[in-house]
Amino acid sequence: MAEAGEPEALVSAADGGDPRALARLISLVENGSPQLRDVMRLIAPRTGRARVVGLTGAPGVGKSTITGALVSAYRTEQLRVGVIAVDPTSPFTGGALLGDRVRMQEHATDGGVFIRSMASRGHLGGLSWAVPQALRILDAAGFDVVLIETVGVGQAEVAIASLADTTLVIVAPGMGDSVQAAKAGILEIADIFVVNKSDRPGAQEAVRDLRAMLAMAPQRDEGAWKPPIVLSSAASGEGIGDLVGRLDEHASWLAESGEGERRRVARAREEITALAVAQVRERLGALPGEARLEDLAGQVASGKLDPYSAADELIDG
Amino acid sequence: MAEAGEPEALVSAADGGDPRALARLISLVENGSPQLRDVMRLIAPRTGRARVVGLTGAPGVGKSTITGALVSAYRTEQLRVGVIAVDPTSPFTGGALLGDRVRMQEHATDGGVFIRSMASRGHLGGLSWAVPQALRILDAAGFDVVLIETVGVGQAEVAIASLADTTLVIVAPGMGDSVQAAKAGILEIADIFVVNKSDRPGAQEAVRDLRAMLAMAPQRDEGAWKPPIVLSSAASGEGIGDLVGRLDEHASWLAESGEGERRRVARAREEITALAVAQVRERLGALPGEARLEDLAGQVASGKLDPYSAADELIDG
Repeated sequence: MAEAGEPEALVSAADGGDPRALARLISLVENGSPQLRDVMRLIAPRTGRARVVGLTGAPGVGKSTITGALVSAYRTEQLRVGVIAVDPTSPFTGGALLGDRVRMQEHATDGGVFIRSMASRGHLGGLSWAVPQALRILDAAGFDVVLIETVGVGQAEVAIASLADTTLVIVAPGMGDSVQAAKAGILEIADIFVVNKSDRPGAQEAVRDLRAMLAMAPQRDEGAWKPPIVLSSAASGEGIGDLVGRLDEHASWLAESGEGERRRVARAREEITALAVAQVRERLGALPGEARLEDLAGQVASGKLDPYSAADELIDG
Repeated sequence: MAEAGEPEALVSAADGGDPRALARLISLVENGSPQLRDVMRLIAPRTGRARVVGLTGAPGVGKSTITGALVSAYRTEQLRVGVIAVDPTSPFTGGALLGDRVRMQEHATDGGVFIRSMASRGHLGGLSWAVPQALRILDAAGFDVVLIETVGVGQAEVAIASLADTTLVIVAPGMGDSVQAAKAGILEIADIFVVNKSDRPGAQEAVRDLRAMLAMAPQRDEGAWKPPIVLSSAASGEGIGDLVGRLDEHASWLAESGEGERRRVARAREEITALAVAQVRERLGALPGEARLEDLAGQVASGKLDPYSAADELIDG
């Protein structure tokens, strides 16, 4: 029998649904373990089956509540559900947003649900590197649906969209700038809009604003997907049935149009590039490169050298 | 005489404060022009003088209002002020947040002020690549203060903190999760906290929450900077004098403690690495690498290959 902790043993235990094995595999990702290579080689043939749904939106719109409601809905269909919650790194508050996900603890004892928070490590590139690999692990372990929840508005969300088969953009009325936030770069990535907290004043205005923005979008091709707008009040479960139906429609459209396959290939392309770049970055950062970089940085900071020449020297010098 | 448009001519016109020359130089950055190499080489000896202040916080907290108020305050001191407003990319809404900055147009005809929005291009790495170079251009052109304003909560902000000498984290009461947002990874990067819209209910609670979080932080060294909390109501100008004072105190501390120099070297290091990585990424993406990548991505998407082996083949194969 293989020793516990070896990639083979972990992968086979995870395939049987052992949550501790899954947790350890994802920790390998977070720690950038050299064993990951073996893990990824072992699981590659079993990947490509999970439906991946990204959830994004500004803080406070109710992403965690919607995630929890979707988990419940898929569990009643007997589907196994994985959740990856991406937190901006917070070294000293330590997983700052976990408290916000306490409501998801109702699923904590359900063997068909696996929930994991991942820190994005505070540097660009961290997210693009780690989340796809965690996703790959849940996919290979046989989860039917993987929900990826991210906080914030900006680059991280665009990165998430490149991972997901379907991206939900969630807004809420009365959140100051919910629609402004939706405008800012995430409009293009939305497959489905959710106006959550629909019982609050301003919900209809938010829907109208989104419709107006969608109307301004360039003409789409015949047969293109038109992002629907779903009203929900996730805390009471209202609108979640509708949302699940829209998600199914989008999944069918992805399969029929060939867009699903295109997205999966694009995702793999991003993933390979991120790994290749990480590998090159690692080579650059290795000693004596590290000392060399420090020296070049000092020269650039004092104006003796420009950063392009410094980059050239770092790569080729 | 050098032809207009040549790097030499542009750099010398920008140095004289010509806003069109500045705009063209920054467009070279946005377009990733090959002429940038010459520009950066020419301006290197003149860089390293500007004070760089980053402003960050969730949408709607009043970043633009505070930026505008700081511009006015510094202008009364006869300082030249540059503003870089970083927008998440939005291809079809085209600079979505510019409307939000209309109030800054009072400075549009002031030759001592230069304001520029930059899109972050929607991919990780875009921000880390372009903003430092725009900053470098404004620095070399003799701006005394450069304000970098970013939207959102998450990775982009952490990247901004690595650019700025001083980072302001702005929150507002009644913004749903203002303090939650502040918690999420940006607490560590704040040199000064601003609780804006201090006339609204909840301002004192926001201050108390921030104090409580700061108290939970690990013990700082003797002589370390303790982030102050400034209350402001930027629309009426209240608190801006206090904020300017705190900024000056932080600038003095940076100079005396050596932390300013350390931050500038760290910034240069990030900049060199980003350029080196961009260069390597470009090489990877070049044909026939592009066709190779597409082929590898197809194999990874179908589970025939794992992404690590694909990355190896891409780099070394």
